[in-house]
Amino acid sequence: MADNRAVAYKGPGEVEVIDIPYPDFQLHDGPGVNPANVGRKVNHGAILRTVSTNICGSDQHMVRGRTTAPHDLVLGHEITGEVVEVGRDVEFIQVGDIVSVPFNIACGRCRNCKEGKTGICLNVNPDRPGSAYGYVDMGGWVGGQAEYVLVPYADWNLLKFPDRDQALEKILDLTMLSDIFPTGFHGAYTAKVGPGSTVYIAGAGPVGLAAAVGSQLLGAAVVIVGDMNAERLQQARSFGCETVDLTKGDPQDQIEQILGVPEVDSAVDAVGFEARGHGKDAGEAPATVLNSLMGLTAAGGAMGIPGLYVTGDPGGVDEAAKEGSLSLRLGLGWAKSLSFTTGQCPVMKYNRQLMMAILYDKVQIAKAVNATPIPLEDAPRGYQEFDAGAAKKYVLNPNGYIKAA
Amino acid sequence: MADNRAVAYKGPGEVEVIDIPYPDFQLHDGPGVNPANVGRKVNHGAILRTVSTNICGSDQHMVRGRTTAPHDLVLGHEITGEVVEVGRDVEFIQVGDIVSVPFNIACGRCRNCKEGKTGICLNVNPDRPGSAYGYVDMGGWVGGQAEYVLVPYADWNLLKFPDRDQALEKILDLTMLSDIFPTGFHGAYTAKVGPGSTVYIAGAGPVGLAAAVGSQLLGAAVVIVGDMNAERLQQARSFGCETVDLTKGDPQDQIEQILGVPEVDSAVDAVGFEARGHGKDAGEAPATVLNSLMGLTAAGGAMGIPGLYVTGDPGGVDEAAKEGSLSLRLGLGWAKSLSFTTGQCPVMKYNRQLMMAILYDKVQIAKAVNATPIPLEDAPRGYQEFDAGAAKKYVLNPNGYIKAA
Amino acid sequence: MADNRAVAYKGPGEVEVIDIPYPDFQLHDGPGVNPANVGRKVNHGAILRTVSTNICGSDQHMVRGRTTAPHDLVLGHEITGEVVEVGRDVEFIQVGDIVSVPFNIACGRCRNCKEGKTGICLNVNPDRPGSAYGYVDMGGWVGGQAEYVLVPYADWNLLKFPDRDQALEKILDLTMLSDIFPTGFHGAYTAKVGPGSTVYIAGAGPVGLAAAVGSQLLGAAVVIVGDMNAERLQQARSFGCETVDLTKGDPQDQIEQILGVPEVDSAVDAVGFEARGHGKDAGEAPATVLNSLMGLTAAGGAMGIPGLYVTGDPGGVDEAAKEGSLSLRLGLGWAKSLSFTTGQCPVMKYNRQLMMAILYDKVQIAKAVNATPIPLEDAPRGYQEFDAGAAKKYVLNPNGYIKAA
Amino acid sequence: MADNRAVAYKGPGEVEVIDIPYPDFQLHDGPGVNPANVGRKVNHGAILRTVSTNICGSDQHMVRGRTTAPHDLVLGHEITGEVVEVGRDVEFIQVGDIVSVPFNIACGRCRNCKEGKTGICLNVNPDRPGSAYGYVDMGGWVGGQAEYVLVPYADWNLLKFPDRDQALEKILDLTMLSDIFPTGFHGAYTAKVGPGSTVYIAGAGPVGLAAAVGSQLLGAAVVIVGDMNAERLQQARSFGCETVDLTKGDPQDQIEQILGVPEVDSAVDAVGFEARGHGKDAGEAPATVLNSLMGLTAAGGAMGIPGLYVTGDPGGVDEAAKEGSLSLRLGLGWAKSLSFTTGQCPVMKYNRQLMMAILYDKVQIAKAVNATPIPLEDAPRGYQEFDAGAAKKYVLNPNGYIKAA
Repeated sequence: MADNRAVAYKGPGEVEVIDIPYPDFQLHDGPGVNPANVGRKVNHGAILRTVSTNICGSDQHMVRGRTTAPHDLVLGHEITGEVVEVGRDVEFIQVGDIVSVPFNIACGRCRNCKEGKTGICLNVNPDRPGSAYGYVDMGGWVGGQAEYVLVPYADWNLLKFPDRDQALEKILDLTMLSDIFPTGFHGAYTAKVGPGSTVYIAGAGPVGLAAAVGSQLLGAAVVIVGDMNAERLQQARSFGCETVDLTKGDPQDQIEQILGVPEVDSAVDAVGFEARGHGKDAGEAPATVLNSLMGLTAAGGAMGIPGLYVTGDPGGVDEAAKEGSLSLRLGLGWAKSLSFTTGQCPVMKYNRQLMMAILYDKVQIAKAVNATPIPLEDAPRGYQEFDAGAAKKYVLNPNGYIKAA
Repeated sequence: MADNRAVAYKGPGEVEVIDIPYPDFQLHDGPGVNPANVGRKVNHGAILRTVSTNICGSDQHMVRGRTTAPHDLVLGHEITGEVVEVGRDVEFIQVGDIVSVPFNIACGRCRNCKEGKTGICLNVNPDRPGSAYGYVDMGGWVGGQAEYVLVPYADWNLLKFPDRDQALEKILDLTMLSDIFPTGFHGAYTAKVGPGSTVYIAGAGPVGLAAAVGSQLLGAAVVIVGDMNAERLQQARSFGCETVDLTKGDPQDQIEQILGVPEVDSAVDAVGFEARGHGKDAGEAPATVLNSLMGLTAAGGAMGIPGLYVTGDPGGVDEAAKEGSLSLRLGLGWAKSLSFTTGQCPVMKYNRQLMMAILYDKVQIAKAVNATPIPLEDAPRGYQEFDAGAAKKYVLNPNGYIKAA
Repeated sequence: MADNRAVAYKGPGEVEVIDIPYPDFQLHDGPGVNPANVGRKVNHGAILRTVSTNICGSDQHMVRGRTTAPHDLVLGHEITGEVVEVGRDVEFIQVGDIVSVPFNIACGRCRNCKEGKTGICLNVNPDRPGSAYGYVDMGGWVGGQAEYVLVPYADWNLLKFPDRDQALEKILDLTMLSDIFPTGFHGAYTAKVGPGSTVYIAGAGPVGLAAAVGSQLLGAAVVIVGDMNAERLQQARSFGCETVDLTKGDPQDQIEQILGVPEVDSAVDAVGFEARGHGKDAGEAPATVLNSLMGLTAAGGAMGIPGLYVTGDPGGVDEAAKEGSLSLRLGLGWAKSLSFTTGQCPVMKYNRQLMMAILYDKVQIAKAVNATPIPLEDAPRGYQEFDAGAAKKYVLNPNGYIKAA
Repeated sequence: MADNRAVAYKGPGEVEVIDIPYPDFQLHDGPGVNPANVGRKVNHGAILRTVSTNICGSDQHMVRGRTTAPHDLVLGHEITGEVVEVGRDVEFIQVGDIVSVPFNIACGRCRNCKEGKTGICLNVNPDRPGSAYGYVDMGGWVGGQAEYVLVPYADWNLLKFPDRDQALEKILDLTMLSDIFPTGFHGAYTAKVGPGSTVYIAGAGPVGLAAAVGSQLLGAAVVIVGDMNAERLQQARSFGCETVDLTKGDPQDQIEQILGVPEVDSAVDAVGFEARGHGKDAGEAPATVLNSLMGLTAAGGAMGIPGLYVTGDPGGVDEAAKEGSLSLRLGLGWAKSLSFTTGQCPVMKYNRQLMMAILYDKVQIAKAVNATPIPLEDAPRGYQEFDAGAAKKYVLNPNGYIKAA
């Protein structure tokens, strides 16, 4: 009998649901585990029975073979679960709690964690600051697209929902707290979106749509979302966004039609390094989004960059792209006094307040991103459809907590 | 022939519409004009034909005789108008512009204005930092509850609406930009309301309701408004607020029923120095609101205090109150690490962005405060009904710009 | 043989060095221990051999009998130590580390800790948010004016010094990181002191002097310190402060002589609830400092209030003072748009950066506050002399780490 | 008889002192004046007799022929002067005032100015947001390396020194307020330098040295300055900076020797687009500085970029550089969650507070940058020596106000 079923990367374009061991309070050797992390004791951890776990656009970079992820790496960093066991050092989290897991793993004891910078924790990844579950070069913490998963530093990392029944009822919204809602919100927040702002968001995938919801929550007057995918643009319009169809070329003209001026106060890059040029048949052109945003952001504006840029990309379009270098129009950005914020969203900075917004019905994030629950065993189909551009956010349901609506 | 009809204070409980001169580009002697301001040249000013001008709760302090306001003082600091003449030094504001006038008069040239602190401009009121139209001890600038009014430093002070027709169509919303919408928003903002916050607002008058709308715009999860006036509480519920009926006693129990905890993250005092004790028959007790808020704000929380506290109150309940002193439970506030922000809202800090939120239908402030246009000549009735507790925000319509809906 | 010698409160005006047990990883019953904390396991804790532990002005409130502190309460919340044992759950702090202990005890797992508000941790004091070692109503954690002390949540709370020898060499500076340097700095920071500011600090005791050093570090142009104690004023002048002698009356005139204007940008209350009136023979008048600061802070300014105000003071001058109420000129503060920040300094927010400033010789805090090491057994004399107004900061040296200079 | 002597650009490598008309209250046609600005009335302006006016590194870009600056363009945007005439609309600035002129010209009436973003004023330069005196593509305002100069919007732009004698005594410090002291400070401030920070500054020219002084004023623990010019590095050491000699290669190793770690909290680019590679014989390599800073800034850190990057550079090393594009290692920056702030310093945001720091002897900026007064007629020599790498900040003295020390 399988202890634990989990989604694994099996090579470019391939994922499979496999059997892996049920977790205990130790990080064992396995695909992608940093040697310095092998055997690490996790008495501060909790074992969760997964309530929901989502497929993320950043998983796709691995699945497309654009990283050095090893075969059999267990995927999944967007996790909500029920606590079924706690390590001996856990004091406040209890068995039975329904909890959201921030995708960035943090120790809660280093300088960066103490400063709230949990996206660059110094103690969980021997390679560099910052870590995540089920991700290449992130220390080797086992992914959560599985029936069960181990979460280290449980008292620090876990966000407990106040009421079990309410949590399960709103699970399709709350499941977005582990990554894309805070990540999109962070994009908007670091782009300095506030009451009355005009905002442009590049990319209508789940993070882009979450950035749009985040912008609305921050009080933006107008949120404009740009993409080439008609279905995703339709999704953006469904909750009040304006849209720009990038198959028709550069967004600036279309923005002018909407706002009367060709510029916005704030811009968010929700695309990242696999960006394509504008226009119908454009190929990959990694600097397109950032250069376009420098053009359409008004002088004095800010750009939030939650879209992932990497230090190495074996599939990069040229030598520069392969080492994460981009040809950026910094002269233009400088002339406009722009500011830029990059990096992983530190989820803990935002997840409690966004949970409150969900629990009191201030936002409908599940509807905005078209949350679509599927069985764990259907994960391969989910990956494929998502990669093909489905305007859906796939939510895996490994243990049947999510009931048919 | 009357040049200019205007609302004047005629003594405790009495206002009257009187004839005053049509303005020119000079500040002439008159009731309440500071001698140092008499004869001041205003070539930087604009003369407006008033589009709308609202009755404010802070006017009521004067009309109730709770200040040293002189008879015949022309009232009115909430002004929207059409520019009909500009002084020779005005460069960017043009005849025909429809503009909102921040209630605080500011020069745009002193240290405080340069720092964005337009509520305490150093150059417009010889008595102290800060000024306003039609208000006691504020330098003597003539009030705007009139057909025509002079606005100094027009290029700095005036907020031009981008489109005349749109402006007149949304005039009942836009008229709130001169004072109560920014003032309420400032209360929420300085109480550190943000996405997911729980908020309590003391007072369901127009400023309290505007603070509630402002809190919603800032992303609050729950906004709770407390008052003794059932009609005003109904108004708060009409746009999604929770309410607390203060005739039933201290708000803390009722807050606990709403939130599950007896505390909020942020609190706003939208009442000020004429506060009454809680409970059905409570008399005036000026420290009630602040002490109550210190009790119900969670440790680490913040209090915004847009409600007016004065340095002298001839009608104060005791000697301390007469000089603006209050018996405050600072020990409690200190134990909870609370912070407090007081003072006039610097309207220019917020009015452009709030205008954007109105123009793009992000907020419905007129509906929230029950904006109710009446003819200028009906001002005395407006003052009386408002003082009696009508859940309305009276908007005077001196020149017929506001059409029947 | 005594396991552990410690300074205890023995009744009004009396402290004594007594024998207490050597700590283990549990909070045992004892004077002032909250019943809900008795028997609490502290496997996350570390036992320190005390390197230095300072006498604090807030200890004096207890020793003077102005609180409900029980007899035999072990005093001391300003602790630097060498780690001699760690609990089984401690992962990063190691035996032999020289560490600074923030006076506020924090769990590193609650909402407030995660937000950096360690002064109001929710999990360490059953009575209210916030805790401290050796202090009345703070949960009962044993004080550190002792040879050995238990520090809970060691990985979270402790600040490790990078180099042992360097740490011991600079120990008289580094010992101030546990409380007064961050506390004074917090006063300056929350008073919005920055480059070029003019600052007034009420009180030239150690916290006031630390606020002065903190203001200088923040770039203040002029720092003015007021007190009635000539020796303490001399101490302030020794490192470049201007001073105001409060025996000569209200500070405003003297400020005008120094600055040319009778107002400052920022003001710090480093006195608290045992304030006395101004003038030579003034008695206790708890609102004096705050009201004076509202007068002398310029419109738009900010006041930092690290001085302690309490919720109950058995020795208060009147009924209001006994429950922590003060008659404050809020009308004046409001007219000037002042803001106020109260409460315990969250030490962890500042201690690492202030340590850096010490280690790189950017500040000389020990010299500024006249750090004066004395043996543990001399603690009673230290308390007495400090209460009598000595311009010294007494540093107890229980284990001989501090060598004669 | 010459009305007005002024320094003009005469072609690559050439400047000359020429005769130009004495200014009046109008912007006349001339070299580089935007046609839309020709004939513009400046009744809000003041005419200054120049007290001091400095040669700036950004002038050198023009003089080296790296821009499209026309021949006979009058140079100079770092101006301090005595007011000799005021336009009819000027209200607060008076004849006889000694004033500092922010290099960015701002109207004090547009949205950006109202928000404090005076570096991107919307009303002074028809080409784009933002303007400056004596600079290419900045609208055509006549430069101030002259005996007399016109300053528009005088009440808004000018910073008056409180005392004439004190101002003339400290003129070599105060002259830095027009540009480099605020610009360097802005670099440090936007790099989030604060108490206890470790800082690296690329470039030991005057702006780099000013960034170093600014970092010290902000409380930095260690300030490290890198350059290839030994004399300039010596200048940095003269006021307490550590230094890195870039002729020896990449700075990271040398930083590790100083700090024990190869990273800093904050980094400032005080070089800009004419950057050269590291190592003794390195040629121009415009992305070197930014890429190097991304390497040596710690995860979570910030980079301030006051160094100028341009939208067009006829002398660029390749096609990309010619249009202001740079190959940046954004992948690395993203992995480290860095943030970036670019653009002209909005001088008015800082100059008053930095003036206070000078007047109260908190900083010695003149000494730090080695301020060196020379006669106006010697400007050509000053340009040449500065371009050759002299570790001096040349201050022109057109009217003899600066006396020999």
